[in-house]
Amino acid sequence: MNALIVHAHNEPKSFNTSMMNLAVEVLQGEGHEVLVSDLYEMKFNPVASADDFRDRANTDHLVYALEQRHAFASGTFAPDIAAELEKIKWADLVIFNFPIYWYSMPAIMKGWIDRVFVSGYCYGGTRIYDRGGLRGKKAMLAFSLGGQAHMFGPGAVHGELEVLLQPIQRGMLGYVGLTVLPPFVAFHVPYISAEARRDCLEQYRAHLLTLEQRAPLAFPSLDDFDDRLQPKVVAAS
Amino acid sequence: MNALIVHAHNEPKSFNTSMMNLAVEVLQGEGHEVLVSDLYEMKFNPVASADDFRDRANTDHLVYALEQRHAFASGTFAPDIAAELEKIKWADLVIFNFPIYWYSMPAIMKGWIDRVFVSGYCYGGTRIYDRGGLRGKKAMLAFSLGGQAHMFGPGAVHGELEVLLQPIQRGMLGYVGLTVLPPFVAFHVPYISAEARRDCLEQYRAHLLTLEQRAPLAFPSLDDFDDRLQPKVVAAS
Repeated sequence: MNALIVHAHNEPKSFNTSMMNLAVEVLQGEGHEVLVSDLYEMKFNPVASADDFRDRANTDHLVYALEQRHAFASGTFAPDIAAELEKIKWADLVIFNFPIYWYSMPAIMKGWIDRVFVSGYCYGGTRIYDRGGLRGKKAMLAFSLGGQAHMFGPGAVHGELEVLLQPIQRGMLGYVGLTVLPPFVAFHVPYISAEARRDCLEQYRAHLLTLEQRAPLAFPSLDDFDDRLQPKVVAAS
Repeated sequence: MNALIVHAHNEPKSFNTSMMNLAVEVLQGEGHEVLVSDLYEMKFNPVASADDFRDRANTDHLVYALEQRHAFASGTFAPDIAAELEKIKWADLVIFNFPIYWYSMPAIMKGWIDRVFVSGYCYGGTRIYDRGGLRGKKAMLAFSLGGQAHMFGPGAVHGELEVLLQPIQRGMLGYVGLTVLPPFVAFHVPYISAEARRDCLEQYRAHLLTLEQRAPLAFPSLDDFDDRLQPKVVAAS
């Protein structure tokens, strides 16, 4: 298996970076090939702009998704986007390793999605969900956060983690056809003991060694929707 | 009223930018003061890093939120963060004007949240939700997207818009104590006629002129949680 780890943390000595390093070690130990896109180390540019295209379909008015389609068809993406696209094509599994910032990923990783999940290749029209451009590949989130487990769930102060993750797991990863495996969550990281952190890394090791056994998350099937993406049968509300 | 519009679009001739310009015109017409943070025009840096602090509490190991608290206490934020914080302090209303990218805001705006919603001032410990640092101020999302209204809702292909917006409206805005007004949503923008776009702008004008009449979104009250943020009463699931 070819595994790509997209990593975003601004401190190389962080626990979060240790999670990324552990994943490299465990996956290589299992005989897999591993590539890491360490976005902070790469000084990855997260800002979607006209500079992302070496040739413009319309130089008068920028419509980002349309220029993505043109750049994909003509092979004229900026070099940093083209390089990340090659890694995606190569990968069978993509792990996103990051600290939760504001119930989402840090901007440097959000910008990787904005710029690299390009229309034309990753999705387009009704090529979404189980018809998405990246179908057949797997993805997984691995993240750390400050909150504790009891702060998430029905009636908990921050609500349900699955709901907070829906824009990422369904709206980004599921949308392009990726099979999304259950996430690994490291709670309360800034406040726990060194021993608790070691335990957490061992749990992540076990999680990585049993990926094949985990049932993926469920997302819509385009079979249930018509060409206008209307439900073919009226769904219960 | 003092209104701050945080705007993120990479094409000045876009419909989305017209929405921002309209909001300036309407709010000024109502006698309000308006400031715009046009993030693309400002070339705003969205990447949270050690460079954000002119003086470090710990130069050996970066813990971003702890450095925010130190920088707030000592007045040592990088100039671009300090300038945005002054605008937030000044504002009674903050409008976030953006195109939906991947069921969230573009990275350049996510990075504005990451870097400007600082621990120490905007939140900290149990100073969240109705005890958040920005309580008393209002916020609102105004966004455009490619999808159509029928693609959102229970049983719809992309699920419920309120759920997709929860990380932003609750996890970012509500979390820091902002009173969040219902969003203005411009559906299907790249594909509609010039006339439909004019209609949409008129709807936004009406929305802006009736802000005071709109009931804000409901978020948790810290009164219902103890010091560990456990629910004081067991909530029904």
